[in-house]
Amino acid sequence: MSNAGKDVSDWWATDIIDMAPGQIRLRGHPIEELIGNVTFPQMIWLMTRGGLPTPEQAKLLECALVAAVDHGPQAPSIAAARMAVTCGLGLNGAMASAVNMLDDVHGGAGEQAVELYGWIDDVMKDGVGLDQAAAKMIDRWQAERTVFVPGFGHRFHKPEDPRAPRLLGLVDAAAADGVVSGRFAEIGRAIQKILNTRKGKPVPMNIDGATAVVYAELGFAGQLARGLFCLSRSVGVIAHSWEQMNQGGRNKGPTPPAYRWSYTGPNPIDGQT
Amino acid sequence: MSNAGKDVSDWWATDIIDMAPGQIRLRGHPIEELIGNVTFPQMIWLMTRGGLPTPEQAKLLECALVAAVDHGPQAPSIAAARMAVTCGLGLNGAMASAVNMLDDVHGGAGEQAVELYGWIDDVMKDGVGLDQAAAKMIDRWQAERTVFVPGFGHRFHKPEDPRAPRLLGLVDAAAADGVVSGRFAEIGRAIQKILNTRKGKPVPMNIDGATAVVYAELGFAGQLARGLFCLSRSVGVIAHSWEQMNQGGRNKGPTPPAYRWSYTGPNPIDGQT
Amino acid sequence: MSNAGKDVSDWWATDIIDMAPGQIRLRGHPIEELIGNVTFPQMIWLMTRGGLPTPEQAKLLECALVAAVDHGPQAPSIAAARMAVTCGLGLNGAMASAVNMLDDVHGGAGEQAVELYGWIDDVMKDGVGLDQAAAKMIDRWQAERTVFVPGFGHRFHKPEDPRAPRLLGLVDAAAADGVVSGRFAEIGRAIQKILNTRKGKPVPMNIDGATAVVYAELGFAGQLARGLFCLSRSVGVIAHSWEQMNQGGRNKGPTPPAYRWSYTGPNPIDGQT
Amino acid sequence: MSNAGKDVSDWWATDIIDMAPGQIRLRGHPIEELIGNVTFPQMIWLMTRGGLPTPEQAKLLECALVAAVDHGPQAPSIAAARMAVTCGLGLNGAMASAVNMLDDVHGGAGEQAVELYGWIDDVMKDGVGLDQAAAKMIDRWQAERTVFVPGFGHRFHKPEDPRAPRLLGLVDAAAADGVVSGRFAEIGRAIQKILNTRKGKPVPMNIDGATAVVYAELGFAGQLARGLFCLSRSVGVIAHSWEQMNQGGRNKGPTPPAYRWSYTGPNPIDGQT
Repeated sequence: MSNAGKDVSDWWATDIIDMAPGQIRLRGHPIEELIGNVTFPQMIWLMTRGGLPTPEQAKLLECALVAAVDHGPQAPSIAAARMAVTCGLGLNGAMASAVNMLDDVHGGAGEQAVELYGWIDDVMKDGVGLDQAAAKMIDRWQAERTVFVPGFGHRFHKPEDPRAPRLLGLVDAAAADGVVSGRFAEIGRAIQKILNTRKGKPVPMNIDGATAVVYAELGFAGQLARGLFCLSRSVGVIAHSWEQMNQGGRNKGPTPPAYRWSYTGPNPIDGQT
Repeated sequence: MSNAGKDVSDWWATDIIDMAPGQIRLRGHPIEELIGNVTFPQMIWLMTRGGLPTPEQAKLLECALVAAVDHGPQAPSIAAARMAVTCGLGLNGAMASAVNMLDDVHGGAGEQAVELYGWIDDVMKDGVGLDQAAAKMIDRWQAERTVFVPGFGHRFHKPEDPRAPRLLGLVDAAAADGVVSGRFAEIGRAIQKILNTRKGKPVPMNIDGATAVVYAELGFAGQLARGLFCLSRSVGVIAHSWEQMNQGGRNKGPTPPAYRWSYTGPNPIDGQT
Repeated sequence: MSNAGKDVSDWWATDIIDMAPGQIRLRGHPIEELIGNVTFPQMIWLMTRGGLPTPEQAKLLECALVAAVDHGPQAPSIAAARMAVTCGLGLNGAMASAVNMLDDVHGGAGEQAVELYGWIDDVMKDGVGLDQAAAKMIDRWQAERTVFVPGFGHRFHKPEDPRAPRLLGLVDAAAADGVVSGRFAEIGRAIQKILNTRKGKPVPMNIDGATAVVYAELGFAGQLARGLFCLSRSVGVIAHSWEQMNQGGRNKGPTPPAYRWSYTGPNPIDGQT
Repeated sequence: MSNAGKDVSDWWATDIIDMAPGQIRLRGHPIEELIGNVTFPQMIWLMTRGGLPTPEQAKLLECALVAAVDHGPQAPSIAAARMAVTCGLGLNGAMASAVNMLDDVHGGAGEQAVELYGWIDDVMKDGVGLDQAAAKMIDRWQAERTVFVPGFGHRFHKPEDPRAPRLLGLVDAAAADGVVSGRFAEIGRAIQKILNTRKGKPVPMNIDGATAVVYAELGFAGQLARGLFCLSRSVGVIAHSWEQMNQGGRNKGPTPPAYRWSYTGPNPIDGQT
C-alpha cells in the first residue's frame, strides 16, 4: 500500500490486531497459536491489556468471571433481555438491551470500588495506616461521590453475600502463592469492618466489592472492571434470553397481564382507580 | 411466602437460578462451589444448557470462544464501539452498541451454519451419502434463504482463513479422543469441497463456518451459537473500546475530519461537488 | 477538494444533506428557510422521502404520529426505558433501550399491515373485488407469514380501540377532500369485516392497523411505517423516562422487591419454593 | 380490581396515561380528542410536561425540533445507524444504535447549555448584571465541568452556524409577541460576546446552544432538552437508515474496503505497515 490513504488508515490505528490475507495476529500472536493453547480468560487478558498472564493470574481472573454471571431474572438488565426476545429480538439484541443497562448504578459499582481501593492504596503509600486510610477515603467518597460506598451492602444477601468470602479466600490463597500482593483484600476487609461499625450491623461486601478486589489485585483499571463485569453478566443474559425464547410469549411485560398500573394523574377514568 | 403473588413470581419463573438470603444456586449448584472449581467456559455451558460439561468438552468450547474475539477495528460493530466511547458512553454502552449490530448479516452466519449443518445431518440419517446430502442442502439453502452459503467465503482471507483449519484440527483431535463424533467437521469439509468446485476457486471456510462446526459437534442450538459468538466478540469490543478511551477523541466519525461525504441530491451548494 | 479521497467521500454518499461552512441544505433546502416555515411532520416527510408534502398531507401524517405516542408503562419497551434510567442511563440511553425493542413482534405490525394492504391493493388492480382480494390475501398472510393478521386484534381494547375509528374518520375526511384516495381505509375495513365474521366476535383494528392505513394512503413504504412508529412512541418513552427520573429509584426491577421469581429447576433451596 | 395486587400496580404508577377497555387518556385527555386536534409538537409538550401549550409556544418548540434533524452521515450516530442496517437491523435497531450514542459528548451539549443558562439566570435574579453573570458562570463551568463551553464553537461552521441566528430571530419574535421572555436569548448572546472576546475570533453559537435557548425560554428542564434533541435527530437517523437500506451493502465498515488500519503494536506482519 502506498502512502496515499495513510491518514485514513491511521484514523483507525490500533495496537490490538494485525492482518494480512490468511494471517491474523492479536497483540502480535498468530491466532492459530492462541487457539487451543490459551484459555478464554488468558485471551481476555491478552486482548484488554496486551500481554499474556501467567496461568495463576488467569485462574484468579477466571474466578471473578465465573462469580458474576447472574443475579436472577428480576435484575433490570436480565428482565429487559427476557422481554426483548419476546418482542422479536435475537440473542444479540437481547444482550445489547441488557448490557446497555449495566450503567453507573447497575454495573458501575465494581469500577467505582476499584477506584476507591486505589485511593486507599495511594494514601497508604504515603505512610498512612490501613484503617485510617480506609476511613478517610470512605469519608471522601461519600463527600465527593455518593453516600453509597461502592461494593458494600446488599438488600437481599444478609448477613453475607456468599460470593464475597469465597472470592476473598481465593485471593488469600493466590497471595500466599505470590501470585498477587493481597493488599486489596486487606483494603476490602478494612472497609467492611469500618462500615459494620458505623452502621452497627453487617454491611456485607457484595459481588462488586469482591470482584473489584480481584481486579485490583490483578492490576486492571476500574473501567475494565466494568467491562469484565458486563462480559461475565452476558453469560446470564444469554442463558435467560434463550430460556425465554423456549418459554415463548409475545411482548412480555414486567407483570402478568392481569395487573395494571395505578394512574395518579388528572381526570381518571371513572371506576378505574 | 404465601401463595399470594404466586402469579407474579411465576411470571418470572426460571430453571437457571435460585436464591435465598446468603445463598445463590445456579442450575442447582451453590455459587461458592462453582467459583474456583469450574472454568469460565464450563460456567457458560452450565448456564446456557443446564449441566456441567466434561473438561474435554469445555476445552473444545473454549477454542471457539478464543478464536472469534476480534476481526479488526473496521468491522462495523467494533467501529461503532470505538465511536461510541468518544461520544461519552462507558464500556457497557460501547458493548451494547457493538453487540446490537451482530445481527443476521454481521453475526448470524454462525447460527445459520449450525442450521445448515443440521439439515445435512438430518438427511444423512435417512441414508443419503455425505456429498449428495451436502449438495442438496446447499441448493435448498440458496433457494429458500440466501445465495450466500453461511460460514463460507471471505473477501479478505484467501485462500484460507487461518482460524478454520486450526479449529477443524482441534475437532479432529477431539473426535479421535471420543469427545465428539466428528461428523460436523466432515459436513463442513464436504460443503467446502462442493463450493470450491462450483466456484472454480477456493471459497474458504470462515470463522463462522468453523466455530459452527465446534458448536454443532458439542450440541449447541443455532441461536446459542450466535449468542456465544456475541460473547466472544465482546472481548474484542472491550479491548478496542478501552484502547479508544486511552487514545481520546470526541465524536469520532468514520473517516478523518478532512474527508466529507459526496452529496448526490438536488441543488448542490456551488463548488462543493 | 481534489479528486484524492473521492472514494472515501463516495463511501458516505447521500442525497439527504449537503454542507459547506456556514451552509446546511436538507434535500436541497437551506436549513434557515425550513426552520420556522415547515412543521415538524413536514420535515419528517421531507427527510425520509425527499419532497415537501402539502399541508393537508402533513396534517394526516401528524394524526398518525400523535396517535401512537404511548400505550402505558407496562409495554416492554416503556418498562425497559423506565428501568434503564434507574440504572444510570440518560434519556438517550433510555430511548435506545425502548426503541430497540420495537422489533418485529412489538413494533413491526404497522410495517406488516402496510405490506398486507399493499398485497390486497395489487390484487385489486388485477380486477379482483375488494372482499375477495382481502380474503385471499389474509389467507396468504396466514399461510406464508403468521397466524396473526397484523394490525388487527387487541387483548385489552374491546370491542374497539378508540384510536382506530378516529384515524379512519380523518382518512375519510381527507379522501373527501381529495388529499388521499381512501382505498386503504376501505381495505382496512374489509379486513376487519372478514375477521369479525371468521372469529364470530369483534377483532378490532388496532393502532398498528389504523396508522398503517394512514401511512399506506400517504404512500410510505412499510419499513418507514415502522420507523415513524418508533419516532412517535419515542415521545412516550421520553415522558415515562423523565417521570421515572423524577420518581427516583435505583435498579428498578419489573416487580416490587417483595416479589421474587419461581424457581423451577433442580435442587431448590429448602423452603423457598 | 380489589386491593390485592395494588402494590404491583403502584410499582408502575404514572401520571401520564390511563386506560380502560376502549378508552385511552393521556394526561387526562381522551386520545380521540387529541388526534386531529393537536399538533405533534403540542403532543410532545403534553406528554413530557403535563399540560397543553399554546399554539405559539408549540410553534417555537417546533422550530427547535425542525432545526436539529441532521448533521450529515459522518456524525458517529448517523454513521452507526447506516452501518447497522447493513448488518441486518431494522429501522428500530438502527435508531437505537444512533440514539444510544447521543450521550454526554455527542448529545449532551444542549442539556448542559440549558443548565449553564440557568446558572446565569439565577445569578441575575440576585441583581448581578448580564455580562458579569455570564462571565462568572462561564468561569465556574470551566472550573467545575469542562473547558468546553456547551453550545458554543463549531469546527466546521465558521464564522456562523446558520441555524443559530435563525432560531434566535424566532425567539426574538416570540418575545416581542409576549410568548416568551427573551431573557435566555440575551444570555446566549452575552456568552457568545464574551467567548468571541476571550478567543479573539468567532466562537459561533451552535445548534445545541441555539436550541437550548429555545428550550430554556419555554421552560424545559435540561434533561428534556437532551431527550428532545434525540427525538429531532431520530428523523435524520430514519432518513439515513432508509437511504442506506436502499443503497444496499453488507457489513458496511467506516471506510471503503480498500482501506485498512495502521497496526501500531508489537510484531507486525512483514511488509504490512
